Amino acid sequence: MAMAKIRLCVDQPLGAGQSVPLTEAQAHYLFGVMREGVGTQVLLFNGRDGEWLAEVTEAGKRKGALTCLEMTRTQSAPPDLWLLFAPVKKARTDFIVEKAVELGVSRLQPVLTDYTNSERFRRDKAEAHVREAAEQCGALILAEVEDAVPLDRLLAAWDPARRILWADEAGAGRNSAPAALLADAGPGPWAVLIGPEGGFSDAERDRLRTFDFVHPVALGPRILRAETAALAALTLWQAHRGDWR
Amino acid sequence: MAMAKIRLCVDQPLGAGQSVPLTEAQAHYLFGVMREGVGTQVLLFNGRDGEWLAEVTEAGKRKGALTCLEMTRTQSAPPDLWLLFAPVKKARTDFIVEKAVELGVSRLQPVLTDYTNSERFRRDKAEAHVREAAEQCGALILAEVEDAVPLDRLLAAWDPARRILWADEAGAGRNSAPAALLADAGPGPWAVLIGPEGGFSDAERDRLRTFDFVHPVALGPRILRAETAALAALTLWQAHRGDWR
Repeated sequence: MAMAKIRLCVDQPLGAGQSVPLTEAQAHYLFGVMREGVGTQVLLFNGRDGEWLAEVTEAGKRKGALTCLEMTRTQSAPPDLWLLFAPVKKARTDFIVEKAVELGVSRLQPVLTDYTNSERFRRDKAEAHVREAAEQCGALILAEVEDAVPLDRLLAAWDPARRILWADEAGAGRNSAPAALLADAGPGPWAVLIGPEGGFSDAERDRLRTFDFVHPVALGPRILRAETAALAALTLWQAHRGDWR
Repeated sequence: MAMAKIRLCVDQPLGAGQSVPLTEAQAHYLFGVMREGVGTQVLLFNGRDGEWLAEVTEAGKRKGALTCLEMTRTQSAPPDLWLLFAPVKKARTDFIVEKAVELGVSRLQPVLTDYTNSERFRRDKAEAHVREAAEQCGALILAEVEDAVPLDRLLAAWDPARRILWADEAGAGRNSAPAALLADAGPGPWAVLIGPEGGFSDAERDRLRTFDFVHPVALGPRILRAETAALAALTLWQAHRGDWR
């Protein structure tokens, strides 16, 4: 059996003998771009039913279908980690979404802060990036993408059982070193909070410090761009509390 | 005294009263793009003499000069961390260079591996990116950029006192968890080694495992892109052995 090299995210249920139609875009990619055809084996996942080896049974210009052969990986519950981030310039927001999926985030929550650049967050585009990144990195889950909400409103309704790892660039000596904080933290869900390029306002920083569930950390002496801070904080969480242990 | 918001990397020596000419590109940026002029205060650094507050004393269309007023930060020796990376597609290589500077790498060493994409590595372009990223992130050093060399040749001449943190995606159960490895490691210089998109060949992986100075680590259960793996490994090193503690 040849090893399946292509991995596709689908919406349909997966199970032994299940037939799965391809979207027009997937058919174009598989048969037009990759030049595959009937008999090609592909890996399928949908975020719920694990990963399945499937075989192309119908190949057309704009359509196609596969049949599930056998389960290759069972669905697993990933570490419970959210990313709260202020949308930045498009290319860097795309990058944050891609990297969050690679780093196993289960929910992407854009937040509007005092210094957030006003560019609109496109949830549908972000969802498409999540699917592509999940296909690429072998993830079994699809991170949920939420609509952007004001940070204030999010904090007012926050479940205090979910701690927030807050990358506070301006906190200097007051903040914890992230590795030590995470190494000593007990179990439970977390979120990482990253600000926009201009950081947080003084009012936001004062307010964040009033919450016991918010844990400010310093990410070193250099000024990290928003997407670097996001990737660094998610990495440290996975290494200490997530599935990199 | 207004806070200087612009930070420029220059080649000239810096010291009290020192006059520093601007390059044509810097003059264009400062006076054309940013609309600044005589009297504007700017931060200067050159990778050797700390950081200085300076004032514009001459402003022309294609030239200009500043005079150093006072030192704002003394030159500091950064943690001794190199990044060995296989050049990937241009945008992602640019990204690796930018992030390596933000994460305090002191030397960027491109390596040619069995599966390295053959695109040429432009050392001059990478050096320009290093300067831009250092201006942006507040770094005091300028990471050295080396020409690309074959991985084999680099390993044959390697100083065994510098340990290599090797992100080995295919090692599965054989590799250490990175946080635990780095938390227990003693002092001394390190390098991070990241492969190209296709990973390392079996021959390379066998050879790397023969060296006592090479420490393979697993960066979680998902397949990270090269630039994600670089950023994650550098983050973990800084958090445990570098200047994020």
